[in-house]
Amino acid sequence: MPHPVPPPLLIRGGTIQTADTTSRGDVLIRDGVIAAIGRDLEAPTGVGIVDAGGLLVMPGGIDPHTHMEMPFMGEVSTDDFRTGTEAALSGGTTMIVDFAIPSPGGSLVEAWRVWSERAAKAVCDYSFHVCVTHWSDSVAGEMATLVRDHGVNSFKHFMAYKGALMVDDGVLLESVGHALSLGALCNVHAENGDAVAHLQKALLASGVRGPEGHALSRPPAVEGEAAQRIIAIADLLGAPIYIVHVSTKDATDAIARARAGGQRVFGEVLAQHLVVDESVYASGDFGSVAAHVMSPPFRPKSHQAALWAGLASGQLQTTASDHCCFCAPQKAKGRDDFTLIPNGTAGVEDRMSVLWHHGVRTGRLTPAEFVSITSTNTAKIFNIHPRKGAVSVGSDADLVLWDPDGSRTISARTHHQRVDFNVYEGMQVTGLARSTITGGRLAWHDGALRTVSGTGRYISRPPFAPICFPARA
Amino acid sequence: MPHPVPPPLLIRGGTIQTADTTSRGDVLIRDGVIAAIGRDLEAPTGVGIVDAGGLLVMPGGIDPHTHMEMPFMGEVSTDDFRTGTEAALSGGTTMIVDFAIPSPGGSLVEAWRVWSERAAKAVCDYSFHVCVTHWSDSVAGEMATLVRDHGVNSFKHFMAYKGALMVDDGVLLESVGHALSLGALCNVHAENGDAVAHLQKALLASGVRGPEGHALSRPPAVEGEAAQRIIAIADLLGAPIYIVHVSTKDATDAIARARAGGQRVFGEVLAQHLVVDESVYASGDFGSVAAHVMSPPFRPKSHQAALWAGLASGQLQTTASDHCCFCAPQKAKGRDDFTLIPNGTAGVEDRMSVLWHHGVRTGRLTPAEFVSITSTNTAKIFNIHPRKGAVSVGSDADLVLWDPDGSRTISARTHHQRVDFNVYEGMQVTGLARSTITGGRLAWHDGALRTVSGTGRYISRPPFAPICFPARA
Amino acid sequence: MPHPVPPPLLIRGGTIQTADTTSRGDVLIRDGVIAAIGRDLEAPTGVGIVDAGGLLVMPGGIDPHTHMEMPFMGEVSTDDFRTGTEAALSGGTTMIVDFAIPSPGGSLVEAWRVWSERAAKAVCDYSFHVCVTHWSDSVAGEMATLVRDHGVNSFKHFMAYKGALMVDDGVLLESVGHALSLGALCNVHAENGDAVAHLQKALLASGVRGPEGHALSRPPAVEGEAAQRIIAIADLLGAPIYIVHVSTKDATDAIARARAGGQRVFGEVLAQHLVVDESVYASGDFGSVAAHVMSPPFRPKSHQAALWAGLASGQLQTTASDHCCFCAPQKAKGRDDFTLIPNGTAGVEDRMSVLWHHGVRTGRLTPAEFVSITSTNTAKIFNIHPRKGAVSVGSDADLVLWDPDGSRTISARTHHQRVDFNVYEGMQVTGLARSTITGGRLAWHDGALRTVSGTGRYISRPPFAPICFPARA
Amino acid sequence: MPHPVPPPLLIRGGTIQTADTTSRGDVLIRDGVIAAIGRDLEAPTGVGIVDAGGLLVMPGGIDPHTHMEMPFMGEVSTDDFRTGTEAALSGGTTMIVDFAIPSPGGSLVEAWRVWSERAAKAVCDYSFHVCVTHWSDSVAGEMATLVRDHGVNSFKHFMAYKGALMVDDGVLLESVGHALSLGALCNVHAENGDAVAHLQKALLASGVRGPEGHALSRPPAVEGEAAQRIIAIADLLGAPIYIVHVSTKDATDAIARARAGGQRVFGEVLAQHLVVDESVYASGDFGSVAAHVMSPPFRPKSHQAALWAGLASGQLQTTASDHCCFCAPQKAKGRDDFTLIPNGTAGVEDRMSVLWHHGVRTGRLTPAEFVSITSTNTAKIFNIHPRKGAVSVGSDADLVLWDPDGSRTISARTHHQRVDFNVYEGMQVTGLARSTITGGRLAWHDGALRTVSGTGRYISRPPFAPICFPARA
Ligand SMILES: [Zn+2]
Ligand SMILES: [Zn+2]
Ligand SMILES: [Zn+2]
Ligand SMILES: [Zn+2]
Ligand SMILES: [Zn+2]
Ligand SMILES: [Zn+2]
Ligand SMILES: [Zn+2]
Ligand SMILES: [Zn+2]
Repeated sequence: MPHPVPPPLLIRGGTIQTADTTSRGDVLIRDGVIAAIGRDLEAPTGVGIVDAGGLLVMPGGIDPHTHMEMPFMGEVSTDDFRTGTEAALSGGTTMIVDFAIPSPGGSLVEAWRVWSERAAKAVCDYSFHVCVTHWSDSVAGEMATLVRDHGVNSFKHFMAYKGALMVDDGVLLESVGHALSLGALCNVHAENGDAVAHLQKALLASGVRGPEGHALSRPPAVEGEAAQRIIAIADLLGAPIYIVHVSTKDATDAIARARAGGQRVFGEVLAQHLVVDESVYASGDFGSVAAHVMSPPFRPKSHQAALWAGLASGQLQTTASDHCCFCAPQKAKGRDDFTLIPNGTAGVEDRMSVLWHHGVRTGRLTPAEFVSITSTNTAKIFNIHPRKGAVSVGSDADLVLWDPDGSRTISARTHHQRVDFNVYEGMQVTGLARSTITGGRLAWHDGALRTVSGTGRYISRPPFAPICFPARA
Repeated sequence: MPHPVPPPLLIRGGTIQTADTTSRGDVLIRDGVIAAIGRDLEAPTGVGIVDAGGLLVMPGGIDPHTHMEMPFMGEVSTDDFRTGTEAALSGGTTMIVDFAIPSPGGSLVEAWRVWSERAAKAVCDYSFHVCVTHWSDSVAGEMATLVRDHGVNSFKHFMAYKGALMVDDGVLLESVGHALSLGALCNVHAENGDAVAHLQKALLASGVRGPEGHALSRPPAVEGEAAQRIIAIADLLGAPIYIVHVSTKDATDAIARARAGGQRVFGEVLAQHLVVDESVYASGDFGSVAAHVMSPPFRPKSHQAALWAGLASGQLQTTASDHCCFCAPQKAKGRDDFTLIPNGTAGVEDRMSVLWHHGVRTGRLTPAEFVSITSTNTAKIFNIHPRKGAVSVGSDADLVLWDPDGSRTISARTHHQRVDFNVYEGMQVTGLARSTITGGRLAWHDGALRTVSGTGRYISRPPFAPICFPARA
Repeated sequence: MPHPVPPPLLIRGGTIQTADTTSRGDVLIRDGVIAAIGRDLEAPTGVGIVDAGGLLVMPGGIDPHTHMEMPFMGEVSTDDFRTGTEAALSGGTTMIVDFAIPSPGGSLVEAWRVWSERAAKAVCDYSFHVCVTHWSDSVAGEMATLVRDHGVNSFKHFMAYKGALMVDDGVLLESVGHALSLGALCNVHAENGDAVAHLQKALLASGVRGPEGHALSRPPAVEGEAAQRIIAIADLLGAPIYIVHVSTKDATDAIARARAGGQRVFGEVLAQHLVVDESVYASGDFGSVAAHVMSPPFRPKSHQAALWAGLASGQLQTTASDHCCFCAPQKAKGRDDFTLIPNGTAGVEDRMSVLWHHGVRTGRLTPAEFVSITSTNTAKIFNIHPRKGAVSVGSDADLVLWDPDGSRTISARTHHQRVDFNVYEGMQVTGLARSTITGGRLAWHDGALRTVSGTGRYISRPPFAPICFPARA
Repeated sequence: MPHPVPPPLLIRGGTIQTADTTSRGDVLIRDGVIAAIGRDLEAPTGVGIVDAGGLLVMPGGIDPHTHMEMPFMGEVSTDDFRTGTEAALSGGTTMIVDFAIPSPGGSLVEAWRVWSERAAKAVCDYSFHVCVTHWSDSVAGEMATLVRDHGVNSFKHFMAYKGALMVDDGVLLESVGHALSLGALCNVHAENGDAVAHLQKALLASGVRGPEGHALSRPPAVEGEAAQRIIAIADLLGAPIYIVHVSTKDATDAIARARAGGQRVFGEVLAQHLVVDESVYASGDFGSVAAHVMSPPFRPKSHQAALWAGLASGQLQTTASDHCCFCAPQKAKGRDDFTLIPNGTAGVEDRMSVLWHHGVRTGRLTPAEFVSITSTNTAKIFNIHPRKGAVSVGSDADLVLWDPDGSRTISARTHHQRVDFNVYEGMQVTGLARSTITGGRLAWHDGALRTVSGTGRYISRPPFAPICFPARA
């Protein structure tokens, strides 16, 4: 049953802030898209008025990296597509890109179908990267099918998780090369899985079983190595590449070097890595340390300056959350063996506030750059711009009304994420979503959610994004 | 006498290409500004129609670095503000930023006035960087006056031309620091003037007097050193900095390193350096070699890849021409002593075509990136965006209708520049300006100029460009 | 049957050039070792006198990388330990380190035994790196045995040759970690074997079957990637690492970065790569191109400056030949498929002359640096200094009397290597071995070899070389 | 009156540790030089026996950078050539290179004479770098005289101390170019003096007058910039260059980049910078902070890893003390204005112990590398090897008998330096000089000095050190 078209809305008196410009103007929304932008637009009869006085009207955030209700390490992540997208909306994010992961040796198209069903209850728009976890002619064929028939233009690969999701260089070469021919972009989780497995084994053998072992088993060089490797592979093939959750100076430098050599390499940063550091692993409290177990882990503080500078200079382009919630009882599975702690932290709700507070208010980023790295660049790289990531006539009415001076204190007690922990617990942030509009619906307003299950739509993404595949005459 | 308001124009059926997006749409111009953008706009009565079928409608180019009718090395550059801006328009460029240079020890405001008078005959919009060539309280005061009263937000400094325009580090520190407080951006010609003078003397002493001595006296390290120095100075002061005519891998790397450290450093590239290399100095023909004498000189070919990658990766932001024409009799002044050859080449007319042909058609740059580096980034850095560098309602109607498939052969015999030489002589380029609109006037169309002296306007540029001076809460 | 002790020798009137100093002095040899050094040494009765007037008396060269009579790609390399070591002596090299390679899944100790038997006929001293081509508890045990009982302190690993010798990161981690505990140094052939295999397949599929396909299947990034990877692995484990045949700026930069981070990383350069470049693959003549097929292949000329600077600055430490001869009929095996051409070129004879001519005479290297990179550094890294690589009392009498001004023309027609091709064919070099003394025997003199089969000895190398494993209090 | 030749000495039972090797052996000294080295040397009649059991016999340290009794900033440094060289000997250092500084505009030869007179009372050998603080034909001529007639092969330049010792790039170019022709090496104090002056002025203006202002006025970029500049200047001229007291990662990286480009650039590190960091400026106690005022100042801790790695990898070659003592009353001169605090700290006595303890015992450096960076490399760079920096027959008998396990606690209360402060106060170090022999005299033994004024000799240093000026055929 299709959802009814939302009634028209007029956003009045705001400051429109895009990746490109800042300007005063009203925004008229009709049929879920932006119908007009201008000074003092006339209010059509029956239109809903949203007062944006003192607020920035920005493209809604796009989180290019989430894992809702994902089966992983014997558990299922706790936020589902309904609760997870509600949390997203409450923080100003209006679209997520999740990951469809085939069963071992299984069908990619089938994975895409399974995830599509799960996501049917989403309350904001979504799309899927599809994972390539092995190689065969059939995988190659399914990649083509997904691109042609299902609006998929990105494939994900894991260089870590040996014995599970990890692929070797041979598979990477096949997949990156094939994706290039399809106009699809390969995403990579860049950690050397052999090294992680080796260090895990060594740590366990030496008696380190507690959660602090997690970070010790994945030091920065593990990421730096893998980043350099996948960049070299992409270079050999002449393909663009996108590295997810860059957390180290090592990987940032590798990306910058490659770009200085003319390669189209893109890097994503998690808001978490920008402001939380490895000191969280020193508390000695299992619950807290385990709650911070994610991959890549939190890093020595010195890496953060490189990540911020990477975003400001344009060498890193997107920000994400890698939202993947596991509650304390799930984390407890690894009480006696850190390698069994389900990896993941929440973050889809707070990404925008954390980036505004620590990015814009510190002078590291301009408001336009904030929009670029929270929304517009992602839309461009995954080829859904200007439908997404823009405030322009004809674009989807995915908007956030941002209060640059509003403050709130982040806490698991009050957040909308279905998880019992928040890595930003107690952090007071200035900059928050007053209202969030998704597909023309005012879904978050004055601190309250107004969502209807299933109003989120699957977003098809065409291949050959110009920014990834510049045309040659 | 003010010029009459140009009649309305409707650009129909084009593809609007901005730094941000590609879209189909018509553009309606009224009173010199963009009044509407949309599909199938209705043609108001009396509107002039320009058919843009098969063409890209782009922001007109902005050349941030020209020298019209400039007194230099005992000569005056031959293109004046009328002929030079006509040449600009014929190539799709709708605004230039020239340089006002005080007499030795003289007044900056007076220089601004002199240049303003000269530029009164311009046929496209213009503005001035003002040069700081010495330091005193009076200079500091005049900088403030220029920012406050005259719409100047950038000051130029020469680290070369010892005994003439060159300033030492002490002056640079004062000026960059003071400009920071004013919200103005410092531009720097980065070559170590002491080194140039030393090498010139040594070359002359060793009997090298011919024009080939020019490049020998200014090797890449001379530029790399100065770039690193001014970047360090800006870093010490926390100021943004803009390096003109970056021609080497050395300087490009220095800029990238600084940006990776979080500095706001901007780099400009001349189209000439991207496609012409040092081999032009080997011909043995005085006329031809002297005609290529410019500073920085043409470089070993290996530097070009770094410059292209710098532009594609966003580490270098703008492109310019350093248009500064001297004819053969002027160049001949240095027949017996290369240090007396007036420095400069033409380029304002061909910059856009050269960049399209060698940048976009080779796959190095996307069309959006082309717009960024020929127009939009310059508008942002010098804080006149979105008035300039944009195709948006309310922006100045400075547009180029670009034929991406049209070809022409560049030649001094046919170009509009008032000079007898063209460094691109004989180059066949694909991509050219079919029509150029400046301030709503169709000034170049079907190969013909239709300009009226003085229709160009001085563009005031407010201080504190957000991209240079991100606000801190 | 042991060889008789050689009679005493007095080297008179030479200039003693070591890695450390230049000095005038005589050298007295007794019982195969240096017995005395000094000005105007008295000649004992019955001593043989060698006149070193006008010559440099230097430590004999050590070639850390040769493959005599090696079974490889279905062929056996043509120089055996007798002919190969004779060629070495004629060029001033007095020791080689060859590679013992187990059969697939086979015993390392057995490989060591097989190679020991083959080498029994050698006429200069030798030792073996032993290859680790798979991993098991038994391999680990054999590594310990080789270190403890057989004087092996280095193990070789191939990151290339997929499906044959190649090991994956898991094996590398195990082996490097285990070697660390044994005080042994791991050597690595750093090329990404997955990438090579992928590119080979792609080239063959696209119809490239000729020998020019070889270099295309192994571009510089293939080496750069692997170098960075093995460096990262060593870093994770805190182990030293030695990269054989570094041929690219990419790998050189990776080594320098690691050393700047405090890692003990060593790099070896082949003389061939320093002076021969990829242009040899363009001739179109199968025989000549195939004769140049080696891995890594010859590179674009621009890489050579980085290699020379790496040697001069101490970031690359050793030079080798990777001597591995295959004659035209053997090379012809790959006439229709470049992947079947046996990889390898000759070089053990000419390494010293080529390095002197192109290194010392050009001012790139001092004579002391020449000795370091041809002999002393290798002796230190493989822990046989000052027995080898030194001119000091008690050291083995392995010496070369070098004529810095003597010239010769290199040619396969005149060389002593048992192969029908020389990559330096026709190169005139200045700097040659007038006499070579090995174990106190004058084995090469006045252009004539005087060798006796089996006078070469196996050199045991103790673990824990200080330069690789600095002690911690 | 010449000093009597010291009686012969036999050093028995030690382990001889050079930059090259470790070996057991005795050392016989006669007439102030090493007469024999060997196992179980026979003791000549009347020889003095020194028992070196358990000790390392190493080349005495050479401190390439001291300032004894130097007039500076209105004061004179408190250690004179007698007391300063006694302190040196007590720490195992047997030679210093001090700086002869002309009066403003004055004669270089005269400065050399003045310093020669002052140094006549030295108790260990010494030499002088001569400073070039302005440029004229007369300076050029005096440089030639000093090289030809006075054994000077190095000239020092200050890029800092504006208005006093500082020279601009024009002078640097002249002097470095001229020195190149003379075979002399230029030394440079690399800090941008304009920047320092600017920041000093700004700090004073903003009310920062206390000693903590010192480091604020000389941040790392001030050094990094100057290092890059002088390297570029040397590159332009093809000259070697030596940068004194490298204290930052910035300068270290610049040196490494230059060496990777084939330049002969050398870097010196002060032991102080390796182990003391900027936290010393935070105490709030004028006396202590002022006592740490030196240029370059102490740095953020993160720079130290780069310096250590630079020494271990051979990119930085020498260590020094920049010994320049000022007592509390002298330092007090700048109580109200940090720019008036005489710059300098003591260090000649403790350099060797500090480097052994923090370098060798931590595994950062091998004992051989320790000898290289404390003695041998300096001897080679300043062309007095193997007379100095070696344990070889014929070398000067400048030796230290080093107890690698002996411990002491550093303190101003017990040190031999004539100054009331020690930046290592309270540091317990393992590794100390049991005996020090200078010119064959046992001058420090069992904790007691036995020196005779004037037994130190001036050491002539010939031009064209091979390591700086490799010959070209
Ligand atoms: Zn991941
Ligand atoms: Zn993930
Ligand atoms: Zn310029
Ligand atoms: Zn210019
Ligand atoms: Zn190999
Ligand atoms: Zn080999
Ligand atoms: Zn100094
Ligand atoms: Zn000093």
